[in-house]
Amino acid sequence: VATSQTKLSWDVLLDLGPPESGPLHERLKNTLRQAVTRGQLREGTMLPPSRQLALDLGCSRATVTEAYGQLVAEGYLEARTGSGTRVRWTRNDSAPPASERPASAPLPRFDLAPGLPDLRAFPRAAWARAQATQLTSITDAELGYPAPGGHLRLRALLADHLNRARGANTRPDTIVVCPSVTEAVRRICGHLRRLGIDELGFEEPGWSRLRAVARSAGVTPVPIPVDGDGLRVDLLARLPRLRAVVVTPAHQYPSGSVLAPHRRADLLAWARERDGVIIEDDYDAEFRYDRRPVGTLQGMDDSRVLLLKSLSKVLSPALGLGWMAVPPLWAAELRASTPSTPDQLTFASFLSSGAYDRHLRASRLRYRRRRDLVVTHLTERLPHLTIDGVAAGLHLVLRLPPGVDAGAVVAEAAHDEVAVTNLAGSYEQPPRSPGGLILGYANIPDVSVPEAVARLAAAYARA
Amino acid sequence: VATSQTKLSWDVLLDLGPPESGPLHERLKNTLRQAVTRGQLREGTMLPPSRQLALDLGCSRATVTEAYGQLVAEGYLEARTGSGTRVRWTRNDSAPPASERPASAPLPRFDLAPGLPDLRAFPRAAWARAQATQLTSITDAELGYPAPGGHLRLRALLADHLNRARGANTRPDTIVVCPSVTEAVRRICGHLRRLGIDELGFEEPGWSRLRAVARSAGVTPVPIPVDGDGLRVDLLARLPRLRAVVVTPAHQYPSGSVLAPHRRADLLAWARERDGVIIEDDYDAEFRYDRRPVGTLQGMDDSRVLLLKSLSKVLSPALGLGWMAVPPLWAAELRASTPSTPDQLTFASFLSSGAYDRHLRASRLRYRRRRDLVVTHLTERLPHLTIDGVAAGLHLVLRLPPGVDAGAVVAEAAHDEVAVTNLAGSYEQPPRSPGGLILGYANIPDVSVPEAVARLAAAYARA
Repeated sequence: VATSQTKLSWDVLLDLGPPESGPLHERLKNTLRQAVTRGQLREGTMLPPSRQLALDLGCSRATVTEAYGQLVAEGYLEARTGSGTRVRWTRNDSAPPASERPASAPLPRFDLAPGLPDLRAFPRAAWARAQATQLTSITDAELGYPAPGGHLRLRALLADHLNRARGANTRPDTIVVCPSVTEAVRRICGHLRRLGIDELGFEEPGWSRLRAVARSAGVTPVPIPVDGDGLRVDLLARLPRLRAVVVTPAHQYPSGSVLAPHRRADLLAWARERDGVIIEDDYDAEFRYDRRPVGTLQGMDDSRVLLLKSLSKVLSPALGLGWMAVPPLWAAELRASTPSTPDQLTFASFLSSGAYDRHLRASRLRYRRRRDLVVTHLTERLPHLTIDGVAAGLHLVLRLPPGVDAGAVVAEAAHDEVAVTNLAGSYEQPPRSPGGLILGYANIPDVSVPEAVARLAAAYARA
Repeated sequence: VATSQTKLSWDVLLDLGPPESGPLHERLKNTLRQAVTRGQLREGTMLPPSRQLALDLGCSRATVTEAYGQLVAEGYLEARTGSGTRVRWTRNDSAPPASERPASAPLPRFDLAPGLPDLRAFPRAAWARAQATQLTSITDAELGYPAPGGHLRLRALLADHLNRARGANTRPDTIVVCPSVTEAVRRICGHLRRLGIDELGFEEPGWSRLRAVARSAGVTPVPIPVDGDGLRVDLLARLPRLRAVVVTPAHQYPSGSVLAPHRRADLLAWARERDGVIIEDDYDAEFRYDRRPVGTLQGMDDSRVLLLKSLSKVLSPALGLGWMAVPPLWAAELRASTPSTPDQLTFASFLSSGAYDRHLRASRLRYRRRRDLVVTHLTERLPHLTIDGVAAGLHLVLRLPPGVDAGAVVAEAAHDEVAVTNLAGSYEQPPRSPGGLILGYANIPDVSVPEAVARLAAAYARA
């Protein structure tokens, strides 16, 4: 039955519309995309091998592989080496998480996907003014080749800010400015391989994007479970080959737990004993609501911890501005392309004028209020569900009772224009049950919160 | 003698000044830097092993390795795996080439180093206006995560521009926006290795920076000689393992030759027969003065040629904006971090408004005039020397007679605040003689040309 079902679905690919509507590869792409978005090809459906579809369509194989490749890039299809191409996304599924949506896609009407700050609050006018000022004052020499580790003025300000605001222990010459945290992890993985290290521990659950980056850099991700006190540091002893691990100590993603003090100490001791390194992804630590900010691990041992940060959760991921603080001998190895010098100087002027700190304070207040609003409505509409990880950050976790299918809730919600994310996607090996949802609340306007939560509750009831 | 000489030089490292003048690693760095810039430690001098210097100074080894590392990053020292750390730069040498100078360094007074456009002509006001407009009109969704291959609006405009201005054969979905040509080569090398290709052919002489990038990505550069017709394509037959090569067909760097038509055909035939790829670095092809622009190889076979370009030679390397046109199946593999979306849209508006084409036309006229001026003065002051590669680009090659030491001319000129570059540095295996100088003329004001050439001629006479 499955085979005939699948075979039947393929037939939609054979009607590509009239030649005058565009080149064949374009028509094939459009037809495929529509078939997916209209639900004619459902998630998991295997597509015909490119060779066979090319024969059926009477076109070159390149036409087919190109169409598949583009739709893989757009997130509609998924290609696994050795197991063909399959549909990854269906109309009934949620919108993909914000961090994986192509930029061309409009934001969903009720955006509770995690990964984005409040994009409506981006200080467009102030940023544009700062840019114009920097372009006026930048020297001719500064318009030449950029310093590989970042402009010294920015590095000095970042070192100062990290030390002051995040309890870090950094100096300008150990800061490396880079485009993003994922790019930082890509470079670090490259250097780990040069050092002969080809395994990297990741929190389970954790941010799946970083695991994918490690894999594509030839480093094998090793999942290490997390509990209410953060990473299960005790389990590292069972992994004798492991010498590097990625952690989110201040606010574990996605569970929201804080790495407990005794575990921080144990993790640092582990790194020293193994001659290993700790990669600290400090992604949203600026936003703590209920107690004093948790300082960085990096501040406790700057020779073993690489601290990664970016503007993605503070201003916008579109700026492509990130930075890391690394042990002295690593800095030269991790320098590569930098963000534009005028952009670096614009960010530097935001730091030195105090505009950055003001933006952080205003954001913290806004997100805290929004979190309270979301929690109030969730408690009212879904009183039996547990909410986790609300003490900090830009997202929370809604735990579902055993037996409730999180995927079905996500799909029902998406049907109603509400984007939420299945917690299972953060696992390397998702547990059977109970499931949960990740709700990002930074990028939804306060006025939309009641309606979004009402729709989510209705979706939950239907699922 | 060499040993006692070297030993003597080290002694300058043992006097680090009083403790109150700063932390030890800072004092060590300053002392080292001064010793190099004052000529106390000359180019090529081996530094003491870090362990030994640490013993001599009574400090930790980390203090020494850190100081060394910083000065390597600054370009004063050079560290080779397995052969220690040595001095790379001396006061009497030239300024390092523009592409290798740290951004913090001021431009030399008479800058004839190659690699930079006219930085004084950067359209600061127009760029700032375009940035402000884009920041006003950008959508909230566009402030979210950027599309991995670049914003579609920019890719569409780049495809159109490449096809129109460079005779290329590209489509928006085969364009990958990236920070620079070096970053493009880094990604391509990573993908070559995944394909099992670990050798990459380079023109000899060629741009040394790209060879270094290949090496650090684990790919071995294979030098292939160049003559007046460009790459010696006939020699590829002798390299049976080679399947990938980097070329500058429109204007060979640094010799200035154009890849002859029969060699273009032979090179493409080679790539097809070997199932290989050609990486076309089209770095300054916009600037041809004496005849019609040479079209790209990519336009002749878009399935075998990867075309690389950036704004570095057109506007400024500080913008961190580059792009490549690649075969369809490569695009997904080469996408990684992109320049900031607002910057991409600013560039897109420059392309769509015609401002980019106008800037190219104005630059071409300016550089042509400046080239004429430089050639006139060179012919007058150094009438016996041959000048090569003047038909295009932003630099020329001044051939020196046998027996004249190019390094000595470079050093004498640097002494007189004129930055020129030794041709020998572009070789993997520099020939003994005759030597030459690379003179970049884009970034020197017309008014400075007579004085710069007069000083260069005087340096030549002294050397």
